[in-house]
Amino acid sequence: MKPSLPSGTRDFSAEQVAKRRHIFNIIQSVFERYGYQPLETPVMENMSTLSGKYGEEGDRLLFRILNQGDFMKDFQPEANLKQKAAHLCKRGLRYDLTIPFARYVAMNHHQLVMPYKRYQIQPVWRGDSPQRGRYREFYQCDVDVVGSKSMLNEAELLQIYDEAFSELKIAVRLHLYNRKLLQALSEVLQKPEKLIELTVSIDKYDKIGWLGVAKELAEEGFAEQELQLVELYLSHNKGSNQEKMTFLSNFFGENASGREGLTEIANVFEFLEGVPFQNEIVLDISLARGLTYYTGCIFEVKAVNAQIGSLGGGGRYDNLTALFGLPNITGVGVSFGAERIYDVMQELNLFPETLQTGTEVLLASFDAFSLRYAVPLAKKLRAAGIRVEVFADESKIKRKFEYADRKKIPFVIVIGSDEMETGLLTVKDLNTGEQSKLNTEQIIKKLKKQAY
Amino acid sequence: MKPSLPSGTRDFSAEQVAKRRHIFNIIQSVFERYGYQPLETPVMENMSTLSGKYGEEGDRLLFRILNQGDFMKDFQPEANLKQKAAHLCKRGLRYDLTIPFARYVAMNHHQLVMPYKRYQIQPVWRGDSPQRGRYREFYQCDVDVVGSKSMLNEAELLQIYDEAFSELKIAVRLHLYNRKLLQALSEVLQKPEKLIELTVSIDKYDKIGWLGVAKELAEEGFAEQELQLVELYLSHNKGSNQEKMTFLSNFFGENASGREGLTEIANVFEFLEGVPFQNEIVLDISLARGLTYYTGCIFEVKAVNAQIGSLGGGGRYDNLTALFGLPNITGVGVSFGAERIYDVMQELNLFPETLQTGTEVLLASFDAFSLRYAVPLAKKLRAAGIRVEVFADESKIKRKFEYADRKKIPFVIVIGSDEMETGLLTVKDLNTGEQSKLNTEQIIKKLKKQAY
Repeated sequence: MKPSLPSGTRDFSAEQVAKRRHIFNIIQSVFERYGYQPLETPVMENMSTLSGKYGEEGDRLLFRILNQGDFMKDFQPEANLKQKAAHLCKRGLRYDLTIPFARYVAMNHHQLVMPYKRYQIQPVWRGDSPQRGRYREFYQCDVDVVGSKSMLNEAELLQIYDEAFSELKIAVRLHLYNRKLLQALSEVLQKPEKLIELTVSIDKYDKIGWLGVAKELAEEGFAEQELQLVELYLSHNKGSNQEKMTFLSNFFGENASGREGLTEIANVFEFLEGVPFQNEIVLDISLARGLTYYTGCIFEVKAVNAQIGSLGGGGRYDNLTALFGLPNITGVGVSFGAERIYDVMQELNLFPETLQTGTEVLLASFDAFSLRYAVPLAKKLRAAGIRVEVFADESKIKRKFEYADRKKIPFVIVIGSDEMETGLLTVKDLNTGEQSKLNTEQIIKKLKKQAY
Repeated sequence: MKPSLPSGTRDFSAEQVAKRRHIFNIIQSVFERYGYQPLETPVMENMSTLSGKYGEEGDRLLFRILNQGDFMKDFQPEANLKQKAAHLCKRGLRYDLTIPFARYVAMNHHQLVMPYKRYQIQPVWRGDSPQRGRYREFYQCDVDVVGSKSMLNEAELLQIYDEAFSELKIAVRLHLYNRKLLQALSEVLQKPEKLIELTVSIDKYDKIGWLGVAKELAEEGFAEQELQLVELYLSHNKGSNQEKMTFLSNFFGENASGREGLTEIANVFEFLEGVPFQNEIVLDISLARGLTYYTGCIFEVKAVNAQIGSLGGGGRYDNLTALFGLPNITGVGVSFGAERIYDVMQELNLFPETLQTGTEVLLASFDAFSLRYAVPLAKKLRAAGIRVEVFADESKIKRKFEYADRKKIPFVIVIGSDEMETGLLTVKDLNTGEQSKLNTEQIIKKLKKQAY
């Protein structure tokens, strides 16, 4: 049989793993610098944890795991498809890292020290139809703090974005807004009951433009005068952050949600006064974020030099763990889009050249006897921290050099009877072609200096 | 609703993640020192890749993923359970790392440089009933080389075991044997057709003793005289490796499989002559290994100071990728039992004390104004590589010290109006109770010296 991979999934070769680790390591060390600590949750969650948390669409895209044993017991042939799925499957695959985090906090809040700061870098699964840059198995990198109301958390999350993208060498813009201002907008429009529709439409502003948004809102029953107000509002998404703040302050006047949202944003900026940033923070009036659970500041990261969707996003939520019986725990968090970050770094050639942790030197012996000589030599080199391969099979020396070449191993040490007699080994640098006769100590010194 | 975890799965807290990373990092760096490179495969595999590869038992324990869309289309109510499962599920969860590896080699052998050396550290899933030390989601750490016949690979895998367990500080015995000698035994007994039954019974020798083995073999039709021969054979599992080699050489005489197996073992020992080992290699006549695909040398690792099953095992296989249409690729590999290694290290208290990558210093400010002062200070400390938390919410200074205490943060810096005026900050060492007034540079020096 001809083997294949499930559609939307990937194998990662050594080179790809090295590049992915480079991204994760940078993000992780920034998280830890801010006092965030790792959490890992299982790939499987109970369907009772997952169902209904991601809307209709999410329920459709969830991967479900068939029950062990007699999964057909008490099966109802007349039930609908949804009920049948529920009967057949008690467990499913993790769909994001937010719900497992909320589930963990709800299960462990008695032991957790609050505020609880965690990060999580793990794969998730969604049954979307695969396309370029979209996979069914992909990684998320989330960082969240729960149990703290202070806008300092928002300010630090912006710093985390700034430092991580700087270290990854991706130039970005950090978009900031606040959901309370969307609430205020719906109130100014006297349509607070249409908050979600308003949010969802404005969220698409980037893609469908003002005409698209206007069309959607008209269909939702917004009158011409109201549309003009929304257009006025969105048209002020330009100038400095200070100019936008002034406009918004006038626009919302005494509206309580407006005041609150603007105070929160001002608070974040205050915390960051005098703090050096590599990337610009943009107050973005058109930022809305699709997810329903955000209630305060919201974030999105966009690459400056690449045509690609957002590289990350997040926001504050006030009642996430209530889903699992633990109300009134506020939290705020952001996510890094690891797959898109990888694609941007590939496109802009941003990966360092020396990422691989491949073999540094190949020992190539002339015959079975010199092969035995190679083993204790390799042990010595490895004890010095050098990554060594001994070419194990008998074959022509030329073939051994080809192997080193194809695997990009930078040095080859040839071992024959001369070498064993004198203890001086021929070290060949495959990049320069240079050859030198060295003893073991000299070889270690030479290779450690190269530090591949 | 009260949230819960699927039975047999676990969340890993920061402390557990740190300990698990400690194990994985050591194993990984030893693998890389020997020229092995990482591979990662998807959690999901096609059922056509998984089915029938792990025996009846394995098929039963596989986790299957319900098809997306209308999974009931063309459903046959009269089909049996197995057929129904096959209809409902095209994909399943990875059951081990060996079959995905074989699938990867078969799919990519044209591009792979042979011999291909890879390691893989990823979770796998089995629907076993959970019990102490046995989970449904657990990690495997595999290292394999395919495309090389040389016994040097076997010798290096023993070195890898030796170095990894030394660095983990677990004292072990490295058991070595060869499947060709079990083949030879079945031939000497004139029952080559009973090779598998013989292997499976001897594999249980440790657990069920000679009487148990004899009973099983008698049921398989072995006569009294043949049982005496097996008893004689197993009774020589003592003395030095050299004594055992001499006994086996006499026992098998001119039997071709016997000669071959003994030559392979001798070859491994020759390669290791003069190579220092921390742990003993034991030629183990009772070692058999359950899995059917082994054809040459086999390995098993046992802890010296803990009552626990094997901490690892593996062996040579001659035709694994033939399952996926690529015959005649020999390979050899071993696995580390990460979960048991964790349990042994917990039991014997072998984890280093300074594993955590938690916060090193907490900035505790007296009021909202000094909180703003803390942000650029934190930025400076972080730029120096120090892990810093700023306590974000307004609360009594006592509560901030309690937080540091509960989170085991070793230092607290107090910031009030005095401190902001003079630039001299009070640094308190929570372990010693010692306090000192220092400027930013002095703080960085002090904390870097501690290097938590």
